[in-house]
Amino acid sequence: MSILEKINSSADIKALSRAELPALCEELRRFEIEGISRTGGHLASNLGTVELTVALHRVYDTAKDRLIFDVGHQSYTHKIITGRRDQFGTLRQRGGISGFPKPNETIDDAFIAGHASTSVSAALGMAKARTLQGADYDVVAVIGDGALTGGLSYEGLCNAAASGEPLVIILNDNNMSISENVGGMARLLQAQRIKPGYTSFKKWFRNVSSRTRWIYDLAHSVKEWLKSRILPSNVFSDLGLYYLGPVDGHNLVQLENAIRLARDLRKPVLLHVLTKKGKGCPYAEAHPDKYHGVGRFNPETGELAPVGMGFSDKLGEFLCELAEHDERIVAITAAMTGGTGTECFAARFPKRFFDVGIAEGHAVTMAAGMAKQGLLPVFAVYSSFLQRGFDMMIHDVALQRLHMVFCVDRAGLVGSDGETHQGLFDIAYLGAVPNMTVLCPSSFAELHDMLDYALFNVEGPVAIRYPRGGESRYTDCVMSAETVLREGSDLTMVCYGTMVNEALDAADKLALQGISAEIIKLGIVFPNPYEQCLASLKKTKKLLALEEVCAAGCIGRCILDACAEKQIGLCAARLLNLGDGIIPHGTVEELRRDYGIDADAIVRAASELNGSDLVET
Amino acid sequence: MSILEKINSSADIKALSRAELPALCEELRRFEIEGISRTGGHLASNLGTVELTVALHRVYDTAKDRLIFDVGHQSYTHKIITGRRDQFGTLRQRGGISGFPKPNETIDDAFIAGHASTSVSAALGMAKARTLQGADYDVVAVIGDGALTGGLSYEGLCNAAASGEPLVIILNDNNMSISENVGGMARLLQAQRIKPGYTSFKKWFRNVSSRTRWIYDLAHSVKEWLKSRILPSNVFSDLGLYYLGPVDGHNLVQLENAIRLARDLRKPVLLHVLTKKGKGCPYAEAHPDKYHGVGRFNPETGELAPVGMGFSDKLGEFLCELAEHDERIVAITAAMTGGTGTECFAARFPKRFFDVGIAEGHAVTMAAGMAKQGLLPVFAVYSSFLQRGFDMMIHDVALQRLHMVFCVDRAGLVGSDGETHQGLFDIAYLGAVPNMTVLCPSSFAELHDMLDYALFNVEGPVAIRYPRGGESRYTDCVMSAETVLREGSDLTMVCYGTMVNEALDAADKLALQGISAEIIKLGIVFPNPYEQCLASLKKTKKLLALEEVCAAGCIGRCILDACAEKQIGLCAARLLNLGDGIIPHGTVEELRRDYGIDADAIVRAASELNGSDLVET
Repeated sequence: MSILEKINSSADIKALSRAELPALCEELRRFEIEGISRTGGHLASNLGTVELTVALHRVYDTAKDRLIFDVGHQSYTHKIITGRRDQFGTLRQRGGISGFPKPNETIDDAFIAGHASTSVSAALGMAKARTLQGADYDVVAVIGDGALTGGLSYEGLCNAAASGEPLVIILNDNNMSISENVGGMARLLQAQRIKPGYTSFKKWFRNVSSRTRWIYDLAHSVKEWLKSRILPSNVFSDLGLYYLGPVDGHNLVQLENAIRLARDLRKPVLLHVLTKKGKGCPYAEAHPDKYHGVGRFNPETGELAPVGMGFSDKLGEFLCELAEHDERIVAITAAMTGGTGTECFAARFPKRFFDVGIAEGHAVTMAAGMAKQGLLPVFAVYSSFLQRGFDMMIHDVALQRLHMVFCVDRAGLVGSDGETHQGLFDIAYLGAVPNMTVLCPSSFAELHDMLDYALFNVEGPVAIRYPRGGESRYTDCVMSAETVLREGSDLTMVCYGTMVNEALDAADKLALQGISAEIIKLGIVFPNPYEQCLASLKKTKKLLALEEVCAAGCIGRCILDACAEKQIGLCAARLLNLGDGIIPHGTVEELRRDYGIDADAIVRAASELNGSDLVET
Repeated sequence: MSILEKINSSADIKALSRAELPALCEELRRFEIEGISRTGGHLASNLGTVELTVALHRVYDTAKDRLIFDVGHQSYTHKIITGRRDQFGTLRQRGGISGFPKPNETIDDAFIAGHASTSVSAALGMAKARTLQGADYDVVAVIGDGALTGGLSYEGLCNAAASGEPLVIILNDNNMSISENVGGMARLLQAQRIKPGYTSFKKWFRNVSSRTRWIYDLAHSVKEWLKSRILPSNVFSDLGLYYLGPVDGHNLVQLENAIRLARDLRKPVLLHVLTKKGKGCPYAEAHPDKYHGVGRFNPETGELAPVGMGFSDKLGEFLCELAEHDERIVAITAAMTGGTGTECFAARFPKRFFDVGIAEGHAVTMAAGMAKQGLLPVFAVYSSFLQRGFDMMIHDVALQRLHMVFCVDRAGLVGSDGETHQGLFDIAYLGAVPNMTVLCPSSFAELHDMLDYALFNVEGPVAIRYPRGGESRYTDCVMSAETVLREGSDLTMVCYGTMVNEALDAADKLALQGISAEIIKLGIVFPNPYEQCLASLKKTKKLLALEEVCAAGCIGRCILDACAEKQIGLCAARLLNLGDGIIPHGTVEELRRDYGIDADAIVRAASELNGSDLVET
């Protein structure tokens, strides 16, 4: 670890000789594989960008210049280089460093990342600010070809091109998003990669970039003239960006020269870099999708620690079962075939399976078109990513009351991916979509029945929300709007999803204290007249609403509204939830405890509630 | 009106001779100008697409084939042709036909429209459904170059290109969105329009398209081969679409032939059509932005009926005033300079004004980048369009608690644009964004003070929401979280924005009935501990929350939550709001009356509430 140990900033990278860099990259790779094998994290994407990141630090000073990662699951090398090497063992652990860029960790993390396709827009905003303020720093965005399938990146590229702002956009092209990349842009990049110009460009580039600037400028003008007459152009230059590349993303000299050149052009430049996901790690190179995001694994063999069956796997299984009997069912994913458990559907019904790329908005509107013409579309998507489809759900689906199913995965706390990925806003945004039915299973068996119910017994749009991971204590199956899970007389607990497990544990503990809690489990979250809840509240006069979502739009408030409407007076009510919804990384158990929604917190709240009475009568 | 009177469907258009078509188009133009001058509506966009729409009906049967408009404010000709000529006088009026495509009006309106950039995605979904079901109909989307600046359209184009689905995408290129078009795509289209190939293509096209299909195919192959060797390509063919055009959008023969050809290619085709906004109407041709969406006007002279000063105008005025004294202030619009009242800012501070095209997501993320580097970005945007930026508000702005100002125009009922444009979801979605402060002025003077407060006295993101139109009875200025507007003892009315006017009128009427209503006006909607509300409720025990938004996430529910937390028992509560938020077109006054939130409805609710008591105690 001799070289890596000396590295604590961009300056330390610049102080190295070029000859030392390959060894540094090798050390970084070993360090990352070793670390991630213990903490879990994003492996393949980080291994693919080691040289690129080192080259960026050769050219830029990230304490001053602004380096914006897209998605950000490729920022580990950057974190290690910029003073967080010793904390790398705390990656994604409670209280440790985040697996994504976080400006509150160091000045070197210029902007938050986690969702895709944001980098060009954020970088353009920074570049414009820099120019308006007459400040002296450079701005560079690193965007993967996967993130380029998102419309936000296109909006950013169009505006960046038109702006004329000095700004470098590095396209990290590994021909993958998280699974294999799709769509017109993928096809285009493929053509770009294989066209004869590539090899000759490389030679030409090596010749030119080692000389002075004016020679390059002249050569470029000649090439542009030739290109406009003879060579096919590409979408980036069509849009008005200065296109450079492609460059070998594992050749440090070529990378450094190209980045320096791009920076010095003082224009909106797109530098096309070709990288290989998982580079330098045989099992990750061979299966970059499998080693994209991983738990613990054996660093020698790549053998992954076993993971239990989760709601995602079950969704895929149940969906296949239903699709077997109804040809109208089609499945859609936004570049998350593996994550949403739909590989089996893709394999069995390839013509009825659609991976649209990282394009949640399009997925929703396309599904609306399908539904309008009589198909039964099922869009499996993570809760926090479906936020991108909020307008399309209202405008394209709900206003026409089209029947389609949103399988909202990663609803609630997701754990180690942290604040950008927590699925804590879906009750608020799904609840605001007109005509939307929202179902929430508490067990695998309920997911099965709810999927069937959603497809065949509901009119209009339906969402089924379920968490990362699997079921626990509660494994029964009740497909109903409300169920009295446990009768009681002192207070009414209302819950849904896997929070029923915390409620059941809490009720056991409360019973020992002589407090009798009634538990109402909601199966249909919206629309729901909450009749059983109200009946129970008429009896107990005390409401404890238990939710793993933000406070805005939560069910507790809906129940208070229903109580008011039915003129049911309560003695006391406590809504336990996750407040503003900003929750960092940690395990789900740790986070439930830290943020006061685990069984112990419920017991405390219930005890207080039980002792309380109206201040005024 | 001799020809037009015979037209009630696509079939009637097909029955006409080619010689009759120009006269029909002339009649359509006169009919539309005459009609819109009386009802108000979208003028320039409809005049620009008369020939295109007629040509589409020559080729397609819209009762069977699916014609998807983008945005839909160019669908009047289509509506008149397909059996709604006699209802054209009811356009945008309560109970009359909508100004946008509405599938519940006739089978010929294939899909809803109102927001931009949705057509390609919806059409692709329909085309896929058609193919999977083995059905026999064609799908065609009509998208403007303005809508093409939205990332959703790019997601749709990429997926359409990759799909291979027979599908025609007509690019209605008038070099405008609602104001002048911007960005990389605009630049590209400009180049496409002026390149020498255009004229020669036209000639060549006329020759070829009049002959048989195989000759065209051969010619195209030769041309593609040549193009790939010699001619510059364009972004559409780069993405894998079969590009045809550009075609003169006011030449009926050329249009009909080109559309027929595009249809018969059985591939994803993009047909580039050049049109002129306002065509055939001198004042609308000269000022297409001014005559985009209009109220009543003199059809001879174009003189517009005077419109009173509105919140949008005031926003522009106040923003200029503040920007004069603080160079950090920059303004952003998503193709709505006129609508948001920011022309004055654009004129006075051109370097600090950014029109990003119809790209709300990008606007939010770019502003976040600006805010991160120390600017004070103000994004002026319509409430229903900001739905597109929901994820970016959470992910890019709120998680980093960046300070920027959202000026949320058209909040609440917008009137004649109807259900796709009503701003009824912003309290729900803004309330769910962490760290978001939401201000709501009730008068122009309050807008002024709130803008100042938002820019200089708040940390983190702030939204100021204000309605279409102007102030009325209430013109005072109180910049505070809560204000007791009127003291009372029987019940507590809580309201914000221009609903205070209804509350004041209702309170007057209630006083005559001997009911004393206390009115609390909220200036800061979020975050707000509702202390004055709670103090008032302790006294009256009766809550009447008055809101021009959907029920989900409404303030009434937040106040009930606060009452529960503070253990304040209420005798009764009524939350008057707009339920699921689907409200059709009509005037704001009509809609408030129809949907039960006007002064009379408040009086009725208050009277009931005053007589009510807890069912249970």
